[in-house]
Amino acid sequence: MPKRHVYLKMTPLEEARRIFFTAFDFRDYLKTECVPTTEALGRVTARPIFTRFSSPNFHSAAMDGYAVEASVTFEASLEHPKELKVGKEAFPINTGHPLPDNTNAVIMIEDVVEEGDKIIIRKAVYPWQNVRKVGEDIVATELILPPCHQITPYDIGALLEGGIFEIEVKQRPKVVIIPTGNEIVPIEKVDKEGPKKGEVIESNSWMLRALLTRVGAICEKWPVVPDEYDLLKETIAKAIDSDAHLIIVLAGSSAGSKDYTASALEELGEVLVHGVTIMPGKPTILAKVKNKPIIGNPGYPVSSVISFEQFALPLLSRMLGIVYEKRPRIKVFPARALPSKLGIEEFLRVKLGKVGKKVIATSLPRAAGSITTLTKAHGVIRIPAQKEGIGEDEPVEAELLVPEEEILNTIVIIGSHDLTIDLLASELKKVNPFLNISASNVGSLGGLMAIKKGKAHLAGSHLFDPETGIYNLTYIDRYLKDVPVKVVNLVIRHQGLIVPKGNPKDIKGIEDLTRPDITMVNRQRGAGTRILLDYKLKQLGIDPSQIKGYDHEEFSHMAVAVDVLSGRADVGLGIYAAARALGLDFIPIATEEYDLVIPEQFWHTEKIQTILELINSSDFKQAIEKMGGYETTKTGTIKR
Amino acid sequence: MPKRHVYLKMTPLEEARRIFFTAFDFRDYLKTECVPTTEALGRVTARPIFTRFSSPNFHSAAMDGYAVEASVTFEASLEHPKELKVGKEAFPINTGHPLPDNTNAVIMIEDVVEEGDKIIIRKAVYPWQNVRKVGEDIVATELILPPCHQITPYDIGALLEGGIFEIEVKQRPKVVIIPTGNEIVPIEKVDKEGPKKGEVIESNSWMLRALLTRVGAICEKWPVVPDEYDLLKETIAKAIDSDAHLIIVLAGSSAGSKDYTASALEELGEVLVHGVTIMPGKPTILAKVKNKPIIGNPGYPVSSVISFEQFALPLLSRMLGIVYEKRPRIKVFPARALPSKLGIEEFLRVKLGKVGKKVIATSLPRAAGSITTLTKAHGVIRIPAQKEGIGEDEPVEAELLVPEEEILNTIVIIGSHDLTIDLLASELKKVNPFLNISASNVGSLGGLMAIKKGKAHLAGSHLFDPETGIYNLTYIDRYLKDVPVKVVNLVIRHQGLIVPKGNPKDIKGIEDLTRPDITMVNRQRGAGTRILLDYKLKQLGIDPSQIKGYDHEEFSHMAVAVDVLSGRADVGLGIYAAARALGLDFIPIATEEYDLVIPEQFWHTEKIQTILELINSSDFKQAIEKMGGYETTKTGTIKR
Repeated sequence: MPKRHVYLKMTPLEEARRIFFTAFDFRDYLKTECVPTTEALGRVTARPIFTRFSSPNFHSAAMDGYAVEASVTFEASLEHPKELKVGKEAFPINTGHPLPDNTNAVIMIEDVVEEGDKIIIRKAVYPWQNVRKVGEDIVATELILPPCHQITPYDIGALLEGGIFEIEVKQRPKVVIIPTGNEIVPIEKVDKEGPKKGEVIESNSWMLRALLTRVGAICEKWPVVPDEYDLLKETIAKAIDSDAHLIIVLAGSSAGSKDYTASALEELGEVLVHGVTIMPGKPTILAKVKNKPIIGNPGYPVSSVISFEQFALPLLSRMLGIVYEKRPRIKVFPARALPSKLGIEEFLRVKLGKVGKKVIATSLPRAAGSITTLTKAHGVIRIPAQKEGIGEDEPVEAELLVPEEEILNTIVIIGSHDLTIDLLASELKKVNPFLNISASNVGSLGGLMAIKKGKAHLAGSHLFDPETGIYNLTYIDRYLKDVPVKVVNLVIRHQGLIVPKGNPKDIKGIEDLTRPDITMVNRQRGAGTRILLDYKLKQLGIDPSQIKGYDHEEFSHMAVAVDVLSGRADVGLGIYAAARALGLDFIPIATEEYDLVIPEQFWHTEKIQTILELINSSDFKQAIEKMGGYETTKTGTIKR
Repeated sequence: MPKRHVYLKMTPLEEARRIFFTAFDFRDYLKTECVPTTEALGRVTARPIFTRFSSPNFHSAAMDGYAVEASVTFEASLEHPKELKVGKEAFPINTGHPLPDNTNAVIMIEDVVEEGDKIIIRKAVYPWQNVRKVGEDIVATELILPPCHQITPYDIGALLEGGIFEIEVKQRPKVVIIPTGNEIVPIEKVDKEGPKKGEVIESNSWMLRALLTRVGAICEKWPVVPDEYDLLKETIAKAIDSDAHLIIVLAGSSAGSKDYTASALEELGEVLVHGVTIMPGKPTILAKVKNKPIIGNPGYPVSSVISFEQFALPLLSRMLGIVYEKRPRIKVFPARALPSKLGIEEFLRVKLGKVGKKVIATSLPRAAGSITTLTKAHGVIRIPAQKEGIGEDEPVEAELLVPEEEILNTIVIIGSHDLTIDLLASELKKVNPFLNISASNVGSLGGLMAIKKGKAHLAGSHLFDPETGIYNLTYIDRYLKDVPVKVVNLVIRHQGLIVPKGNPKDIKGIEDLTRPDITMVNRQRGAGTRILLDYKLKQLGIDPSQIKGYDHEEFSHMAVAVDVLSGRADVGLGIYAAARALGLDFIPIATEEYDLVIPEQFWHTEKIQTILELINSSDFKQAIEKMGGYETTKTGTIKR
């Protein structure tokens, strides 16, 4: 059994790509096969294609009218109209029909006066006017497609016209995926109640299979190999001797599977690169065994995707000799500074939305283990190894993961988190499927700051002013002096203490937080919930330093609820809906007004008007009330 | 039988789209179905999707190291290292593995000194440090995908992690295609020797089927309906009563099929639009029968594609409630002015290539009947209805039909046409599949002008100077004074008279051109072949006005050969290869030097160096000689 592996030498991305891509000679690596042209979409030509037939293959009328021998029209003019006998000198003809013998031009129907068996013309036509000549589109024997060309729908039309009904193409590259790791459980073996402790649902292999399907490769997914060195080595050797063109070994997230792959590959052939200075994606292994490429793909899902897209996809395009379409790039402005580690190229997932004239990028969590940072992302910002980050508002390029139109149709909501925002996002799709919501949770005050800096279309806020007892308006007066805004109530909601099911520690109210057997989880400074807690503590004369866990901050109600669910904390202040979603208990403490703050400059846009209409609909109000912990008596009211 | 149809009112594109797209209520138009998540790539969610399981579903190590209860580490510091007992206070753990009970943090292996059954640490960890908490990625019950969302590979990963193994999606839209027209012959019925006079190979329906396949729609292609009014009406009625979501009736290129469709639709339901002010694509019909959309698609292939892309595709995206990716756009500069008709929005197919800092657009023929103008195109320039054209060098947007990288890798050749340029394009793919050649035929002088204006990477030229007997160099001295260039011989070629097989009119030489029974076809002014002809005529003392067809100009050798093949002309001056390709006879007249003119600024680029290497290879020279009519004794020689 091999010992724990250490990256001896990490390789920068571009160097790793160069080493890997130039290590193989892909000429004639893929065999060729014949397929019907009608089924050849997306396939790649194996050799130059020459046409068999010309198109058109006869002279035909390009217009409706009369076919003539042009010289009989030469004397016609406005002053001297000329008569032609139908059936002798002029022959009625429709677009696309063959020219009668001894004719070489067509007079347009609009230029003709029809009179019994004669037509009168006032204009001459020159030879071959209004005629589609033989071979005008395609000449028999001409080169119609070069080799290494990916066949488009248009090509299919041209090939058929040129008489190519069957075509020789390169075979689809075949990729064998070998998932590994003791903890990985195939879908069909997952317990109905969910995976057991220590089990991870097999998902990376299916995700890579879908990525392969999308580019037309054939994917053979092999069964999960447990962390047994000899078995793994044997399986890889079998894959190498199969007809696969590329083998991808998926590490589980456990160290064993990662280490075994590199050792096995070293014994079987040559490890070209082990470790790439990218994040996520660092533990990539690039190897060559018997002239076949093998990739050790990292276990965390985002690492897996980024490694796959940087190494596997471009390798396939090189086998086929084609260029895969690159993601479009656009200029974006980070909502906050994006620090990054020197020496590592970082792939940062961001949400994007156009606010005013700028596309604003809000970064998602960096955790490589979090696949939802990819599913929620609109784009990826790459921070080069030699940069320590991107400053707030510093323009930078983002690769788009969604159509640009989707970004233009995105409503950017920054501020306090509430589940009714998720509901809004979902209901909005029913009203107008082309509009999207991108919500970032930075707390109520953070939302007002985003509005002030022009980085959001609207902010969700529930800031309580202890002095006046008023929600939001006094804060807006203070912080948004120069930005005219409208304020609309979204919902009145119940805040309370979220505790485990059955309330095992018998918590009754805020005063219990100081108990020595109780650890709380808090919200971040600036969050409305935090202000509420601090207000209640002050009312009760409690010093925060008496409370265990007061300094531990989370950024959303759901995160607080998860902490309680997982036993990380005994209690946290939050909304009823979050407690209910996770089956936790809830002790009501207060109701509060959750409002939307909307800059007047966006008020009349389709985006905001659609949102307002939705909020005022009875369907939406009913959906809110069904969630529990909310009141809709003020919902939709324009408070200012 | 209905009478000939006239467009009563043509509708501008945007208005036609608005009328058509708003005529239908697509809510619940598509039914839903359940599919395994693993097979759901590209499908569209029917309703919001909420997760079943959290991920991770247990606290796990985010690093390799030792799991501990954080408080036991609190006293450790650089000055005061602390010992922990392995198996009692500290537990070895690998990334991804579950934390043992009563631990809540992981000390990284790098921060530990291992000594027998103890470890020594010099740094504290805080609770939950280096731990992936339950629900860090996905929280059970949370919204993971909204409705109307097209499922990506990443989504498949997230759905599986969240315990969604089956998913409710909208059914794929089903499109029935009905080809019509007496002249249309299905592929399997085409004669081995090629279609008969008046026959057109069925190709548009297959092309649209491929376009539909690409967006995941189901396409049912019905048999060709001949131009019989009642039969057509009956077939459309049947399609409407089928389970199709969209019906597309393809007109043949003949007038009958075009007219019948509109009349039948008027009888069956409502014609919303008949005729759109676009070119190609004008004869589009948009109709509604029993709340189903029906499109009358024009017969010319380019018209068919443009109409389909403007009306059918966006309609499908509206049924699904998703946005289809738009083609990327880039700024380009037309090599020549592009005149256009007022009142018509024109879709102009162009070749693109980056020469120096600008992407140069060279327009392809405008014929709507020429599908190769789409297969050869890199992009489409849209000239709005209210514009009379685009000026030379006026920046304009082009929609890309190929990846932008392909354009950056394109070598732009403008100048005289020769078949060895096609050979070069094809052989180049074998050497470097990522490089492309875009060749435009404007004659030798046109090529030198393109070089002068910085619009080409190289020009093919065979300009004979009657005074010195030298090819090209004297012209370069005269026209390219300010542009330093290199000149490389590509080939010595034979020019001669191209005549029909068997030389029926017994043409022996240039002097026969004046015979009254002979019509010639000429090349355009500025073409090297034209200069050669004029020189020979002068030598023989022949006045061009004595020659029938002298004024009829074509732009390539192949076009001249096609004119001879089709009987349009009896003879034309051209190269042997063109005669041979079409099985015509050839009477040699002269040999000439065909050179490549290359600006020095591009000489050291990969593009030009690859071309030079290829030209000098013996493979390439042999391939040229196999074509006949060429000599390679000077091929590759740098003349200057």
